[in-house]
Amino acid sequence: MSIIRKAISRMRAGEDIGLDRSGQGGRQQTINPDGTYNLERKTGRLFGNFFLYHWILTTSWTRYWFTVLGFYAFMNLIFASIYMIIGHDSLNAMPDQSFLSRFLYCFFFSAQSFTTVGYGAIHPDNELSNMVATVEAFTGLMTFALATGTLYGRFSKPISRIRYSNNILIAPFEGGLAMQFMIANELSSALMEMEARVNIGWSEEEEPGKKARRFQQVKLQIDKIAMFPTSWTINHPIDEESALYGKTLEEMREMDVEVFILIKGFDDIFSQTIYSRHSYMVHQFVWGAKFKVPFHVNEKGKVVMDLNLVGEHYQVNVPAPVPQSAATEV
Amino acid sequence: MSIIRKAISRMRAGEDIGLDRSGQGGRQQTINPDGTYNLERKTGRLFGNFFLYHWILTTSWTRYWFTVLGFYAFMNLIFASIYMIIGHDSLNAMPDQSFLSRFLYCFFFSAQSFTTVGYGAIHPDNELSNMVATVEAFTGLMTFALATGTLYGRFSKPISRIRYSNNILIAPFEGGLAMQFMIANELSSALMEMEARVNIGWSEEEEPGKKARRFQQVKLQIDKIAMFPTSWTINHPIDEESALYGKTLEEMREMDVEVFILIKGFDDIFSQTIYSRHSYMVHQFVWGAKFKVPFHVNEKGKVVMDLNLVGEHYQVNVPAPVPQSAATEV
Amino acid sequence: MSIIRKAISRMRAGEDIGLDRSGQGGRQQTINPDGTYNLERKTGRLFGNFFLYHWILTTSWTRYWFTVLGFYAFMNLIFASIYMIIGHDSLNAMPDQSFLSRFLYCFFFSAQSFTTVGYGAIHPDNELSNMVATVEAFTGLMTFALATGTLYGRFSKPISRIRYSNNILIAPFEGGLAMQFMIANELSSALMEMEARVNIGWSEEEEPGKKARRFQQVKLQIDKIAMFPTSWTINHPIDEESALYGKTLEEMREMDVEVFILIKGFDDIFSQTIYSRHSYMVHQFVWGAKFKVPFHVNEKGKVVMDLNLVGEHYQVNVPAPVPQSAATEV
Amino acid sequence: MSIIRKAISRMRAGEDIGLDRSGQGGRQQTINPDGTYNLERKTGRLFGNFFLYHWILTTSWTRYWFTVLGFYAFMNLIFASIYMIIGHDSLNAMPDQSFLSRFLYCFFFSAQSFTTVGYGAIHPDNELSNMVATVEAFTGLMTFALATGTLYGRFSKPISRIRYSNNILIAPFEGGLAMQFMIANELSSALMEMEARVNIGWSEEEEPGKKARRFQQVKLQIDKIAMFPTSWTINHPIDEESALYGKTLEEMREMDVEVFILIKGFDDIFSQTIYSRHSYMVHQFVWGAKFKVPFHVNEKGKVVMDLNLVGEHYQVNVPAPVPQSAATEV
Repeated sequence: MSIIRKAISRMRAGEDIGLDRSGQGGRQQTINPDGTYNLERKTGRLFGNFFLYHWILTTSWTRYWFTVLGFYAFMNLIFASIYMIIGHDSLNAMPDQSFLSRFLYCFFFSAQSFTTVGYGAIHPDNELSNMVATVEAFTGLMTFALATGTLYGRFSKPISRIRYSNNILIAPFEGGLAMQFMIANELSSALMEMEARVNIGWSEEEEPGKKARRFQQVKLQIDKIAMFPTSWTINHPIDEESALYGKTLEEMREMDVEVFILIKGFDDIFSQTIYSRHSYMVHQFVWGAKFKVPFHVNEKGKVVMDLNLVGEHYQVNVPAPVPQSAATEV
Repeated sequence: MSIIRKAISRMRAGEDIGLDRSGQGGRQQTINPDGTYNLERKTGRLFGNFFLYHWILTTSWTRYWFTVLGFYAFMNLIFASIYMIIGHDSLNAMPDQSFLSRFLYCFFFSAQSFTTVGYGAIHPDNELSNMVATVEAFTGLMTFALATGTLYGRFSKPISRIRYSNNILIAPFEGGLAMQFMIANELSSALMEMEARVNIGWSEEEEPGKKARRFQQVKLQIDKIAMFPTSWTINHPIDEESALYGKTLEEMREMDVEVFILIKGFDDIFSQTIYSRHSYMVHQFVWGAKFKVPFHVNEKGKVVMDLNLVGEHYQVNVPAPVPQSAATEV
Repeated sequence: MSIIRKAISRMRAGEDIGLDRSGQGGRQQTINPDGTYNLERKTGRLFGNFFLYHWILTTSWTRYWFTVLGFYAFMNLIFASIYMIIGHDSLNAMPDQSFLSRFLYCFFFSAQSFTTVGYGAIHPDNELSNMVATVEAFTGLMTFALATGTLYGRFSKPISRIRYSNNILIAPFEGGLAMQFMIANELSSALMEMEARVNIGWSEEEEPGKKARRFQQVKLQIDKIAMFPTSWTINHPIDEESALYGKTLEEMREMDVEVFILIKGFDDIFSQTIYSRHSYMVHQFVWGAKFKVPFHVNEKGKVVMDLNLVGEHYQVNVPAPVPQSAATEV
Repeated sequence: MSIIRKAISRMRAGEDIGLDRSGQGGRQQTINPDGTYNLERKTGRLFGNFFLYHWILTTSWTRYWFTVLGFYAFMNLIFASIYMIIGHDSLNAMPDQSFLSRFLYCFFFSAQSFTTVGYGAIHPDNELSNMVATVEAFTGLMTFALATGTLYGRFSKPISRIRYSNNILIAPFEGGLAMQFMIANELSSALMEMEARVNIGWSEEEEPGKKARRFQQVKLQIDKIAMFPTSWTINHPIDEESALYGKTLEEMREMDVEVFILIKGFDDIFSQTIYSRHSYMVHQFVWGAKFKVPFHVNEKGKVVMDLNLVGEHYQVNVPAPVPQSAATEV
């Protein structure tokens, strides 16, 4: 029996992802609204935790274009300088005027080689510049392979536009209480085989005056659905095993509860698995409420999903939580 | 015991995907024949649920080509205008005649730069136009990266050409009844590790005069097969736990039964997971029938699969369904 | 008890993949040595089960190059004809001589536009031909997107070079018998999380004079391994539940046993799941033998894997199979 | 009971990956620090276990660039030779001087065709050379498809920069002992759904004087975590079923214990599954120690992860291992 208990307690053990640390107030939210972690990473090495491809896929569009265009200009400056160094004979019809006009002439030729547009009005005029141009066209093709590849990678990156309700509700459920939030599919994309995993973290006194964070993976009424065209209300029945069992909203505030959510699914258009992370802090809890249904059937018998209704709720009566003392007796 | 019952009932709980709503007649089919959902999505924002890459992968070929060619023409119009604005010296040998012929001259040069074909008969003739051409070749390369990438994405998109039988049969099975439909692999592609999930939805009186939809994920005799070269008859034995237990075809019609099917597999040629969705309405049910085998061995000992036979069936005698009253007693 | 029995029997039910049909002799092997199915597919429609991308990925290199080069030539013939139709002014310096030389001149210009090489020595000389060239460069870029994409797709297609032993051995195992075959990783690729699934098919008399094929998924001693650097002997202990229990090699021959194998793994270099299919017929069975270990430690303490030893075996004594009558009593 | 025992023992059976062979000292580590296997592969055929695409994805950058540039030069040498063979009329303005300058002229033209830069200052001057140039531009496009594809493939290959602690600790755990090591996520990449599998290998006397290697997959306290932003201490409680139960560090040294680790996860930025392999030898074991926590909360309430602290540990007291004799009695 104790073995089974142990097994269960292990199975239900929450995940300490290492971010939700301090037991004191003033904690920052563990997962940012965009799904990234609220975390600073220190490493001994310069660029120790930098990986170019990751950066290029995830940086802002402004930075991306700045980087790509900057690199294009930089490469052309380099090759233009080489043609300048080779000398006046390197290209045909090199202008005699100022240094700047000669440099621009070389720069334009470089760009025409680098992009392989090669009008030919400017062309290499001796063997050395011909050799450099041979290398530049190769370099250009390889460079644009990375530029166009990353552009397409960014463009086609699967995104999960999952909308979360602003609040977590404590709702009546099967004679007791349940913790509920709603997610909705913002895109027309076919998300399949959705899975939800929910952990809660809270503070507990380890020794008098010293609080520590505890974690629990909570049981969900349904944790997998096969199709997700509209919305899904994820429901954690607050039973005896739940860390929230018998707690009032006040007590939850004192416990500094945070709810961590991981949603996983398969995007049938991208043919790829997507993830969505989210966290709720205790000030987002609403006691005694139920979500409105965010879709209705129109006059033609067609279902209409209204994304603006996702998370809308109305107050309901709920039973008082079982007093803590009674709960521990069970 | 009640805990086990509850656990089972949860496990077997059908999925309410939010589409099969009204309990009245005149309902539209929930899943369209092409696997998309029969659903309208409302959002407050303009383009709120629009995602360009999804659209480009899934729109019709006509719209795709119209968009890509239109964008190509549009970009060339923009750049042609810029060369026009730069003036008569922007390009060599600019024609003196009409505005139109000058504009076309610029347009053709633009196209030759944008595609990097760069014949050179027309080429930039001053530094400003040279600079614009430098930018245009870059823009062209990046634009064609998206155009060719999406073209290849559409071309290589894994498709699941799974043929469904036109009907669902109520067939005799192990002394009782079973609900059966057949799927077949239309392509020679190697589909592996197929999985089937079947839900049924039906109307039930909640309160007198008010019907609501209920859902159940039904038990399949076999829900996974490793290889799928030919066809697969998916078989739901209608046992005591099934919502269809003891029902006659009349009763099923009254219940307005709809069957939702999700098929999943791995395409060994694409190396990707594919999904297929389908739904049957009650008018597609056939009572007392069995599917014909859609393949035979030819004179050389080779198996021949005939896709035209998929779904062909013949009438058989079936036992009467157990009366509802008897069923509920169990 | 009967419920559990049923559950087990269902769980263990073999998969009828629809290919291993005839109960008579002269059957062809179900899975070809290259992993494709020995199957003919009939469809009412022309090209009914043809999917271009599948064909292009899986056809021979000869046919691939023939198709791609043929299409390149064909497109250039089309565009060359258009330039011919436009007339003598379409291109500069059009030769006056023979029709052929004019056509070749157009053909070469077309190729230079289609590939965007655009030397410019030949260039469009009026607005109509300029417009056609604008379209041709676009067409060329889009066409080469498919050509280069499919080339790379073929080049980078994950392959599973899994070597199967030529024979299946009936070997002594834990006091009884086991059916064993060996697979080896032919490449240095890192195959991870290998899974094996083995089904057997055999003929049984349904009614006097009429044989039918039966199938069983057999139990393996180990059906998953995490790493697969060398070889793996897949071992089916022939216990009471096995269809081969108590059978002699003679009886297996009479049963016309065929063994179907599905191997699945993850290629860590390609980052993709790969599958391998194989089947053994009864003439490949060897009674009373064990596989030699295909690797040894060399003088430097390094393990050396010799692929030529995969499947090598030596004779051993095995216990007589339990007589059929005794087996059925259990 | 014996059936259950057998089932358990099978389930827990370690994986013999075929590399950790000799029971004698002087063994080399089974998995190299970079995750590759310490293995030599022999095959009868030349290039028998060589697969070009694998090699190109995994070879060093130096070799990669050497190969690609070498191939580019080689192709241009071939085509230059063809233009030379066609003769003095093949290209316009062919220089009359030395053989070398004529060859270079052809070489540069070849490069300009192969890269499709096509300045046109050099262009084909007769029909034969025009035809060759038509083929060369095609060849160049297809060749660069492979070159740029592999470049991007290398650039975008998912890497798992997982840092392993230098040591395995034998730490106190729930009144007994546990074997622990720590892994950390070196990148800011979002690794999800991490799984760990740990096998141990050791030597045992089979017959007097003859040692053989045995293997066991060990039980982990937690073998899956959903999110992995920081670090994870993987913990094997050394209970009665563990091969290390009741062993002292001396005994483990005698057993020549090696620990094999497989980590699996999903990289949410690459949208791909990644694997990491590692092995520890017995000299990396530390008796009676615990890992320091490698992160702290800074003054702003933000968690700071310090990768340099991963694997840092401090000594602690541990209970003596249960004597071997007592253990075997259980």
